[in-house]
Amino acid sequence: MKIMVFGGDGYCGWPTSLHLSDAGHEVVVVDNCVRRQIDRELKAQSLTPIADLNQRVRAWQEVSGQTVEAEFGDLLDWEFLSYAVRRHRPEAVVHFAEQRSAPYSMIDRRHAVYTQHNNVIGNLNVLFALQEFAPTCHLVKLGTMGEYGTPNIDIEEGFIEVEHNGRRDRLPYPKQPGSFYHLSKVHDSHNIHFACKVWGLQATDLNQGVVYGTVTPQTERDPRLVNRFDYDEVFGTVLNRFCVEAAVGHPLTVYGKGGQTRGFLDIRDTVRCVELAILNPPEYGEFRVFNQFTEEFSVAHLAEMVVDAAGKLGIEASIEHVSNPRVELEEHYYNAKHTKLLDLGLEPHYLSDGLLDSLLNIALEYRERVNPEAILPRVNWRMAHPGQHRAVTPLA
Amino acid sequence: MKIMVFGGDGYCGWPTSLHLSDAGHEVVVVDNCVRRQIDRELKAQSLTPIADLNQRVRAWQEVSGQTVEAEFGDLLDWEFLSYAVRRHRPEAVVHFAEQRSAPYSMIDRRHAVYTQHNNVIGNLNVLFALQEFAPTCHLVKLGTMGEYGTPNIDIEEGFIEVEHNGRRDRLPYPKQPGSFYHLSKVHDSHNIHFACKVWGLQATDLNQGVVYGTVTPQTERDPRLVNRFDYDEVFGTVLNRFCVEAAVGHPLTVYGKGGQTRGFLDIRDTVRCVELAILNPPEYGEFRVFNQFTEEFSVAHLAEMVVDAAGKLGIEASIEHVSNPRVELEEHYYNAKHTKLLDLGLEPHYLSDGLLDSLLNIALEYRERVNPEAILPRVNWRMAHPGQHRAVTPLA
Repeated sequence: MKIMVFGGDGYCGWPTSLHLSDAGHEVVVVDNCVRRQIDRELKAQSLTPIADLNQRVRAWQEVSGQTVEAEFGDLLDWEFLSYAVRRHRPEAVVHFAEQRSAPYSMIDRRHAVYTQHNNVIGNLNVLFALQEFAPTCHLVKLGTMGEYGTPNIDIEEGFIEVEHNGRRDRLPYPKQPGSFYHLSKVHDSHNIHFACKVWGLQATDLNQGVVYGTVTPQTERDPRLVNRFDYDEVFGTVLNRFCVEAAVGHPLTVYGKGGQTRGFLDIRDTVRCVELAILNPPEYGEFRVFNQFTEEFSVAHLAEMVVDAAGKLGIEASIEHVSNPRVELEEHYYNAKHTKLLDLGLEPHYLSDGLLDSLLNIALEYRERVNPEAILPRVNWRMAHPGQHRAVTPLA
Repeated sequence: MKIMVFGGDGYCGWPTSLHLSDAGHEVVVVDNCVRRQIDRELKAQSLTPIADLNQRVRAWQEVSGQTVEAEFGDLLDWEFLSYAVRRHRPEAVVHFAEQRSAPYSMIDRRHAVYTQHNNVIGNLNVLFALQEFAPTCHLVKLGTMGEYGTPNIDIEEGFIEVEHNGRRDRLPYPKQPGSFYHLSKVHDSHNIHFACKVWGLQATDLNQGVVYGTVTPQTERDPRLVNRFDYDEVFGTVLNRFCVEAAVGHPLTVYGKGGQTRGFLDIRDTVRCVELAILNPPEYGEFRVFNQFTEEFSVAHLAEMVVDAAGKLGIEASIEHVSNPRVELEEHYYNAKHTKLLDLGLEPHYLSDGLLDSLLNIALEYRERVNPEAILPRVNWRMAHPGQHRAVTPLA
């Protein structure tokens, strides 16, 4: 199948591109590589040294014999995007190409506006490109479990049956997103749902949990294929960050009480979930939502698991509860459904000592690359004032 | 009270500004006057000849002795907006300053992107300006009843109590907006709700029905104070459009079966609802939603009322069911709550023969100004291709 992966140079996009190529699909990566610029802005970098996209695709060809094509451009650039879609006529588009950090979106006005403009308008352009040039293409869009917030009822997969004053309807699940980033994904979901309704597009919205891990069977085949591993307060997801903190002797930074419970998944399941969605497309006109995670953990529980795993490696890690920079409930009900991908055949990689051991060893291997000043949270949800984040220089 | 009216040169914004000034408030109108440019793009114009904003505020001063200040600028221009808010330190901001036509947003990609960019980013800028320079200011934001779509259950005012699998929560009412314009308002609502939560702002989201009428006690005090009256397929709201159609001998254009039921209100109630919201602010941190309409009608029923009223003036009007350019249910359940503004003291102007008579007479008086080619629907929800709307020239 011909598949375009928008954002295919990123943390989830790159291993997904390799996984799909390895499975025999014809893969075209589209990326503006802005994530690499943001590293410089934040004075942080991937813990793992990553090759540039041209080197990556050359290495993949050498190692696998498969060709992954790279198109360098921006989804906000309609001339570029419409040309790329016309040229490749994809059967599926996987859309990862969004600013994906909640803290980044909360730095100040410019970063909030950048995030919503980039994500919402980029996604609108994707919808129009598909409508005009690839109307039978299946859009697989990355959303986030954070779109739902933490309601006091079970979280369903995208839709909920509501009975009210004696009448019933199946309605979009009410969303309570917790940052300007999460809001941008909710806006996207609404726009995509509408495009499916009026134009008959087919789309799968993958409301993904917090991803951990970095290695997949493809990325470990050559050092030039290695994946990103973010540990900083802005882009580092919580479990990866805890492993790096343990490796460099920094206390594990739990925000507030740590009772925040979220859905998590291994990056090896991310790539498989995307493939399952592609292999099992929805109907034309259907907007389908899958909750893409495999287990629920509280943040405090994860910290304890990392402390234990570190202990087995002879590392004495500690936990520090720091003032919560976010506005969120620290103790709450959480029960989110996630059966649709299991029904399609997902066989989860559950969080294990082996995985924690592997992550800790990667963190130890590259600990010289860590900037410890990038770890403690400085972006504050309650402020969002210019100058709150000293590391950040003006956007171009 | 010091009140800034963003979009105070428009169809609802201008009479609201005059009403608030007449009630003794200190009013500052902020507008980029882009609506007047769009008239040229669409080769249509207000049925009523409208003075420019500088003439309008001068005339109001002559007639009333009250000063309304005008600031010319764009909410997308942060330098302008932050300066204006710092300078005036408003106690309330009424935010009408958005692209407000569903068909305009459906012309093609450029118009969809223009609408969502203008509305969502402009509103984000407003939120940041209030947070930074006027954190105790009450934001009164114009939304639309169209945010809800037509669910098969009663529509509540912004929030709904949901019982699900034995647990309960009060959640944002699920939205099913029907155009890229309506979507932009849903995005705004989510962004505002979040800003109230994290920054403690206070906001009222007025989900307004379809407005009809044009005259208020203030706009009729001088010809230079006259309000807009749009009749074209892109900006003309349905009842106003029917009256103009009757006046120029054009069949009343009912889209599809005409069973589409919506909430409606007289523009004299629009201005009063805004004032009631301002006089009764929410708590800090509260995001409050009022459904702002007074009666429900089906489109076919409205057309029949206009035919009857025209007959009494000796005009033989006819009804034509044209192919529905929109994607919407033409027969559906509709029961939307609207008690909160009544509880605050709204005394509705219900639709009457007298009002229809007045509208028809205005339409007759200015019928020479009508461009009949601007009446029939040409923007098609199912297409949204470049070139579908012949009247439209490229955006600057």
